[in-house]
Amino acid sequence: MDNSIGNIFKITSFGESHGDLVGIIIDGVPVGLDFDLNFIQSEIDRRKPGKSYLTTPRLEEDRVKVLSGIYENKTTGAPICLIIENVNVDSTIYEKYRNYIRPSHIDYPALKKYHGFSDPRGSGRFSGRITAGFVMAGAIAKLILKKYEIEIFAYTRSIGNIVDDREYVSNEINKLFELREKSLIGVIDQEKSKLMELQIEDVKKNKDSIGGSIKCIIINFPAGKGGPIFNSIESNISNAIFAIPGIKAIEFGAGFEAAKMKGSEHNDPWIIKNTEVQTTKNDAGGIIGGISTGMPIEFTVAVKPTASIGILQKTVNIKTRENVEIEFAGRHDPCIVPRVIPVVEAVIANVLLDILLLDGFIPRILSS
Amino acid sequence: MDNSIGNIFKITSFGESHGDLVGIIIDGVPVGLDFDLNFIQSEIDRRKPGKSYLTTPRLEEDRVKVLSGIYENKTTGAPICLIIENVNVDSTIYEKYRNYIRPSHIDYPALKKYHGFSDPRGSGRFSGRITAGFVMAGAIAKLILKKYEIEIFAYTRSIGNIVDDREYVSNEINKLFELREKSLIGVIDQEKSKLMELQIEDVKKNKDSIGGSIKCIIINFPAGKGGPIFNSIESNISNAIFAIPGIKAIEFGAGFEAAKMKGSEHNDPWIIKNTEVQTTKNDAGGIIGGISTGMPIEFTVAVKPTASIGILQKTVNIKTRENVEIEFAGRHDPCIVPRVIPVVEAVIANVLLDILLLDGFIPRILSS
Amino acid sequence: MDNSIGNIFKITSFGESHGDLVGIIIDGVPVGLDFDLNFIQSEIDRRKPGKSYLTTPRLEEDRVKVLSGIYENKTTGAPICLIIENVNVDSTIYEKYRNYIRPSHIDYPALKKYHGFSDPRGSGRFSGRITAGFVMAGAIAKLILKKYEIEIFAYTRSIGNIVDDREYVSNEINKLFELREKSLIGVIDQEKSKLMELQIEDVKKNKDSIGGSIKCIIINFPAGKGGPIFNSIESNISNAIFAIPGIKAIEFGAGFEAAKMKGSEHNDPWIIKNTEVQTTKNDAGGIIGGISTGMPIEFTVAVKPTASIGILQKTVNIKTRENVEIEFAGRHDPCIVPRVIPVVEAVIANVLLDILLLDGFIPRILSS
Amino acid sequence: MDNSIGNIFKITSFGESHGDLVGIIIDGVPVGLDFDLNFIQSEIDRRKPGKSYLTTPRLEEDRVKVLSGIYENKTTGAPICLIIENVNVDSTIYEKYRNYIRPSHIDYPALKKYHGFSDPRGSGRFSGRITAGFVMAGAIAKLILKKYEIEIFAYTRSIGNIVDDREYVSNEINKLFELREKSLIGVIDQEKSKLMELQIEDVKKNKDSIGGSIKCIIINFPAGKGGPIFNSIESNISNAIFAIPGIKAIEFGAGFEAAKMKGSEHNDPWIIKNTEVQTTKNDAGGIIGGISTGMPIEFTVAVKPTASIGILQKTVNIKTRENVEIEFAGRHDPCIVPRVIPVVEAVIANVLLDILLLDGFIPRILSS
Repeated sequence: MDNSIGNIFKITSFGESHGDLVGIIIDGVPVGLDFDLNFIQSEIDRRKPGKSYLTTPRLEEDRVKVLSGIYENKTTGAPICLIIENVNVDSTIYEKYRNYIRPSHIDYPALKKYHGFSDPRGSGRFSGRITAGFVMAGAIAKLILKKYEIEIFAYTRSIGNIVDDREYVSNEINKLFELREKSLIGVIDQEKSKLMELQIEDVKKNKDSIGGSIKCIIINFPAGKGGPIFNSIESNISNAIFAIPGIKAIEFGAGFEAAKMKGSEHNDPWIIKNTEVQTTKNDAGGIIGGISTGMPIEFTVAVKPTASIGILQKTVNIKTRENVEIEFAGRHDPCIVPRVIPVVEAVIANVLLDILLLDGFIPRILSS
Repeated sequence: MDNSIGNIFKITSFGESHGDLVGIIIDGVPVGLDFDLNFIQSEIDRRKPGKSYLTTPRLEEDRVKVLSGIYENKTTGAPICLIIENVNVDSTIYEKYRNYIRPSHIDYPALKKYHGFSDPRGSGRFSGRITAGFVMAGAIAKLILKKYEIEIFAYTRSIGNIVDDREYVSNEINKLFELREKSLIGVIDQEKSKLMELQIEDVKKNKDSIGGSIKCIIINFPAGKGGPIFNSIESNISNAIFAIPGIKAIEFGAGFEAAKMKGSEHNDPWIIKNTEVQTTKNDAGGIIGGISTGMPIEFTVAVKPTASIGILQKTVNIKTRENVEIEFAGRHDPCIVPRVIPVVEAVIANVLLDILLLDGFIPRILSS
Repeated sequence: MDNSIGNIFKITSFGESHGDLVGIIIDGVPVGLDFDLNFIQSEIDRRKPGKSYLTTPRLEEDRVKVLSGIYENKTTGAPICLIIENVNVDSTIYEKYRNYIRPSHIDYPALKKYHGFSDPRGSGRFSGRITAGFVMAGAIAKLILKKYEIEIFAYTRSIGNIVDDREYVSNEINKLFELREKSLIGVIDQEKSKLMELQIEDVKKNKDSIGGSIKCIIINFPAGKGGPIFNSIESNISNAIFAIPGIKAIEFGAGFEAAKMKGSEHNDPWIIKNTEVQTTKNDAGGIIGGISTGMPIEFTVAVKPTASIGILQKTVNIKTRENVEIEFAGRHDPCIVPRVIPVVEAVIANVLLDILLLDGFIPRILSS
Repeated sequence: MDNSIGNIFKITSFGESHGDLVGIIIDGVPVGLDFDLNFIQSEIDRRKPGKSYLTTPRLEEDRVKVLSGIYENKTTGAPICLIIENVNVDSTIYEKYRNYIRPSHIDYPALKKYHGFSDPRGSGRFSGRITAGFVMAGAIAKLILKKYEIEIFAYTRSIGNIVDDREYVSNEINKLFELREKSLIGVIDQEKSKLMELQIEDVKKNKDSIGGSIKCIIINFPAGKGGPIFNSIESNISNAIFAIPGIKAIEFGAGFEAAKMKGSEHNDPWIIKNTEVQTTKNDAGGIIGGISTGMPIEFTVAVKPTASIGILQKTVNIKTRENVEIEFAGRHDPCIVPRVIPVVEAVIANVLLDILLLDGFIPRILSS
């Protein structure tokens, strides 16, 4: 289905970028969880626009409201409905460009699919703003996963050609959180962060935009979870990840590098270490045959440059069917990578919790 | 679910590598299709082992048998059950290594998931042989898609470091089929093919293996299909692709290159060409916002090197829990890339047909 | 899933009886439909409490609010979120009886399922009020079905022992609507209505309650829809019907009478009438082998008496685990049958629209 | 979907009445179960044709064959494929009547749905023979439920007007099994059995058929299982039950009687008995608000008379579109009720196991 995902922990997204609100229904939440609204709000704050001079000037308070599913501050087994309202909406701009199909935007495919009936304001259902719903659900999922010491950590791995290619997985997770927080754009290596910021400033100055990549690491995910064939962890993760606007690629572990390797290089040797079965390296990215190995799950995604740029572009007037050159104005992020980080984390939290609920590793009723 | 995929056109995989057979149930097949068993057989023949000196010496006739769903050589609306039998089975080897968890193999994750009850012979449900079922289903899907002139074409893009990086999408599809057929390993550029073959021979000689990548192009897929959010074409494709053993990465269009690009470079300009709305290039890979643009759908996947190698490897005796070094014997492909090509095509055929059935573009009853 | 139903036209229920609101997300609505809020409101008004002296004194305005999915008063393909707010809430009564498990109420099963975490106020998620969401979704489904002249009509067939057992299916549907409107309790035969009203008044006076049955007729549903085996129309309808609190039985066509009949009595003879293939009677209830025959779909459901009564009852103090006798106070309908009528219609509208969308009979985009 | 049901324990039916075989894929079976083929065979034998002079003369050995999913006689987590072959097939009769749409048969609805492409031989996918697949799956489900002392018992409650209306639920289950075995037609009360047999003989003699009803009792099903709204136990059971050909009605507990009752009569008083919370009677049929109460689950279904009769019937020649009178010959059961008993049990076993797996009450891996 278009707007729902999950088997037991199941989320349903609704709302539009320039409608009244953006929301999420979260069904199948384990019962008896302390509902930590502050944590949910803090996760939403991480993806909020207008946090630094490097993001869109659209200002939204993004205050999380609870419409259902909580009683005496606990989860009840009922579907939880959370929303944020849209306040700082300016749709005049979309009216102005209505007949032009913006390059790399949903305009033309949506026109073909919805025959002109879809809500075009702020890209409607295709706006990145929709992902706020994923983040609210993901925050709840994280709260549950944390009880099992499963941590999800994503960071900016590259902006344009500048890459932070160090391996962080063996570092302490708290240290990583701290370093990422220091950076305006979610980078761990602070020197690389500065270079990437300059890169973003540069494209911003030129009314252009730039892409990047995000790496995500999950630690303490138990071995033997996930499934074969159509239920592989990679299938589940990628299925959900490509719901995030702008993501165009994903690789697990060595990923595309694996295509260049010999078996003798790629195979991760098993070893007994501290009485635990582990691998000495992790080119598998924590997943073999679709099932977790007990090593960290690691993957990287590519984020395309923001489609909205203020530069003259070739396109088509869809009404007159003429080729034109046009400059689109509007308020946009020169680089969405930093704001996608909490979304990636949230989506993965939703997926992994669902896998562990289906498996029975996490029960339907939480003991206090 | 582990073994089923699809909404309307739904397949369910069963069978084991060294059990009696490998099979597939195909439900939701449009009614009234001429059942072309020869075509299904020819697709199965493309992934058959033992086709050249570069593949596994396991010899299987892989004769497709129809158990249900066909009447007077037409599809009836009933679930179609197709099988191939396992004949050339030698499970002694697995018995021998039972206590050793093979690197990059499913042994350890499966042990954790199934507590020792899963069928270990020939990797059981995790064997590449399971994908024969996908290919049988995919052949039926292809027969239907062809009626709408939708063609799916995959080829070996790289083996190790040797890459055939030319753009083929604008070429005539028949020409591409022909060139690919000329190559032992599914490459279009015949010179590159020779180099890649040498590479495979080399690793084979050293009892090693090697990875590679496969590019897939779909032409004539209509614009405006697929969906937003959780129903994006990328979600659907990647969800299915990662069911294929050994695939570790996928990128659509420019993919990871997009992460390095500016918006002004990445955005594909729209243009009216022959009265059709098109883009002048296709970095989007035919999909924007999860929905098809009408341009060719293009994606590339990374295939890891065959896990089975004949070289001394470090691993663990899971019974004694000791670190050991061991050489595993067995019959395997030094490079599975060429045999994965028809599987990628088949899986994509299944996914795309399902999208077009859900959309209503292809009807439930085929007119003759 | 607990709170969602449907394949293409998919609804997700949320909200609690004494929470802020009751709502529904409706996904997969055909695109381009004129959004008739007045009709939706009029359907909600049909199940509103406090309409006559025979229903609960809880007064709710039940004003339908649109939170998402509509643009320029048309459906857009985006999920539609509709809510009604809870205003006239008095939860003190539930506090008072917290330790007593009310007979025929959800208290004890919910305690076992949710370990005490479910929202008990007004029966929370188990309240009949939740069905307001089904009605809002059903109103949209009806609007679409009406375009294809498919009409759904339910009425009170019996209250207690008083039965309106006449056959109405061949009557003009408008005439039936009119007659039902004349009755305070949704009966067609006005004399029977009077007797049933007296029956309800009588139990009300005695602080008791009474059950009844509802018959539902669907006309102009096309032949050849639905499916075999697990996708039979009966499966789909009953699956949805038993989501309505208080329904304990369903029969299609002759139903339990069929169990007493001979084949020669039960078989409906086929006949050509006005060039159409029809049956001369309809003991099949319009469905054979799970598939529609083109004759009216007919079924009857049993509604149990309202569980809440003001009479001394035997039960258990679940805290002290003692047997007790107790009189529960509260505001309730002496007979919920009349208020269930629009809910039955709505649920069926949702189910039948989904069947016709899956079939392709109704397209995903409505032509204007 | 047409041919699959279940969330975790998921079955997919395939095969045709007069094709090569009838089969079932069972996915999600808990791992490590001793595979008791004898028990599965004994369940199949219960529904086998030709068991007494009161059933169809079609003779089938119905030997269960295992095609996949079992290793060292245990379940492995892989999908289990079980089949029975069709041997005693005579399709000439269907050829003869091809242009006539048999009353109460699937002929006409199937023609409208499948446009003439469905397999008509022996009613193809609509044959009662398809239910052999349900029985094989149900036998596996029963083996698992038995480990938790959950027993499912169905029996012939009525044939025509003869009803065995005694309450058996408090009896010892073994005693009931024994009594039912004594009867040729699955009745507990042996005197009633004789009367019913006479009734069947009578309609058989007249080439007619007769309907009946089946009551099903489930004991030791734990309290607090099932779900609210769309996941009620009644929804799940009825959804599956109506997949059985010929069932036209279902009632839980008091069922249609509840429609005649007052709340003070219908409400089941709670009581502490042997330190357990129970009800003093069970008009709820073990389910309130869709969730189990811990009391026996009880329901009754109506089975229509066999559609195939040897008496002159009015119908239509669908080719010439003329009204005709015709006598259909063929081999059929004068009353299918006794053969439906094991099918009802099997279907319920599948549904209840799935509920308990989703809940986590039964784990995915069985401890030995």
